Amino acid sequence: MDKIYFSGRRSVRRFLPEPVSDAMLTEILELAAKAPTCGNMQLYSVVVTRDEERRKQLAALHFNQPASTGAPVLLTICADFARFTRWCELNHADAAYDNFLSFTSAFADAMILAQQITTIAEMQGLGTCYLGTAIYNAPEISALLKLPRMCMPVACLAIGWPDGEGVATERLPLRAWVHEEEYRADSDEEILDLYKVKDEFPGNAAFPAENGKDNLAQVFAEVRYPRAMNEEFSRKLLEWLRFEH
Amino acid sequence: MDKIYFSGRRSVRRFLPEPVSDAMLTEILELAAKAPTCGNMQLYSVVVTRDEERRKQLAALHFNQPASTGAPVLLTICADFARFTRWCELNHADAAYDNFLSFTSAFADAMILAQQITTIAEMQGLGTCYLGTAIYNAPEISALLKLPRMCMPVACLAIGWPDGEGVATERLPLRAWVHEEEYRADSDEEILDLYKVKDEFPGNAAFPAENGKDNLAQVFAEVRYPRAMNEEFSRKLLEWLRFEH
Repeated sequence: MDKIYFSGRRSVRRFLPEPVSDAMLTEILELAAKAPTCGNMQLYSVVVTRDEERRKQLAALHFNQPASTGAPVLLTICADFARFTRWCELNHADAAYDNFLSFTSAFADAMILAQQITTIAEMQGLGTCYLGTAIYNAPEISALLKLPRMCMPVACLAIGWPDGEGVATERLPLRAWVHEEEYRADSDEEILDLYKVKDEFPGNAAFPAENGKDNLAQVFAEVRYPRAMNEEFSRKLLEWLRFEH
Repeated sequence: MDKIYFSGRRSVRRFLPEPVSDAMLTEILELAAKAPTCGNMQLYSVVVTRDEERRKQLAALHFNQPASTGAPVLLTICADFARFTRWCELNHADAAYDNFLSFTSAFADAMILAQQITTIAEMQGLGTCYLGTAIYNAPEISALLKLPRMCMPVACLAIGWPDGEGVATERLPLRAWVHEEEYRADSDEEILDLYKVKDEFPGNAAFPAENGKDNLAQVFAEVRYPRAMNEEFSRKLLEWLRFEH
């Protein structure tokens, strides 16, 4: 068990211009497919973007984050019940997977696969970075990649050979997020104490002043992930997904 | 890179009665916390269930699947925006995370963590099995584990020392789910051909006759994951989650 890999892992947002070979990517995907999947249905698809022009188009839908513009390969990981539904229909089976529960099953499958790809790629020396913005612009990404209905992009992985080591980031103490037997009702003081590791992390120290805020929490809630953005993208997604049940 | 582990991995549903030590579980969780997380917000919590009476109660909410009744430890992995929201509010920040977009961010974080725990535990010789039913009975599990609003169970991991090797299962060929540059529009014949590996897998051969169905797809769509169940649980979940946006 490679404890040193797991304890030291970090995301990489800058990549060398070298390509990732087809053979290497194929092996990573083959190995990752042994990850657990709901009822062994493999409710996911992956769209590989290598073409330079397409990478630019896709990166724009990820707000041109540095990891999206510089990586030689972008993998769009999709929660996909479309393929399974087609197989069912071709077998005259009454498939009913256009609903919220089935969406969550496919979402889980896709994220399990995404993380397995991440681990296997990183263990081979590649650098990776998740682009969570795949969900923000899911309708537009679906159009670009010609995804069918019931196939939704839920994550994008930027992959390439690392240029530098990536930046080490802090984590909450275990007791902030691990609960024994039942969810612990922390006091206000305990919550504030648990998050001190974030408030006091050197890499975070400049953010409040840079953003004209009093503290780090306000930077998160009012600058990085603010109400107007969350609620606007939520409405867009729910209208696009059209869950009737 | 332990290719043999990745290529041979399988889920384990039967466990020896030996416990998993606190020290080992703590180390697994510490290492897993270095997994990627959205904006480094760690939008997850884990509830550890070891107590025998509580394990029985929790297993019942997983329909007493064998993996749920026999494992010495059950980890309920939660998509948790509740803790982060409390921290924001205590810092007088305008937190707006009770919406669908934020739910998907926390869901993704929780599944990335779940898969990192799975890999690290299995690499140390433990057996694991996902219980996707965490979502089916999310409201009841939340009540049992005293989860706050905006903290939803999205997966449960049964963990223990394996009794036997688990059962090897088939996977679709890579070209079924990997698409170059854009989603490939397969013909009906191609879809049926891609799924032959499932139809013809020896472990699946008896299922249609056992279930009075013509083929494997009908077993999935009409017996294992049927319309009435999907739609009933979907409605229950959406009513409980109450997404306004």
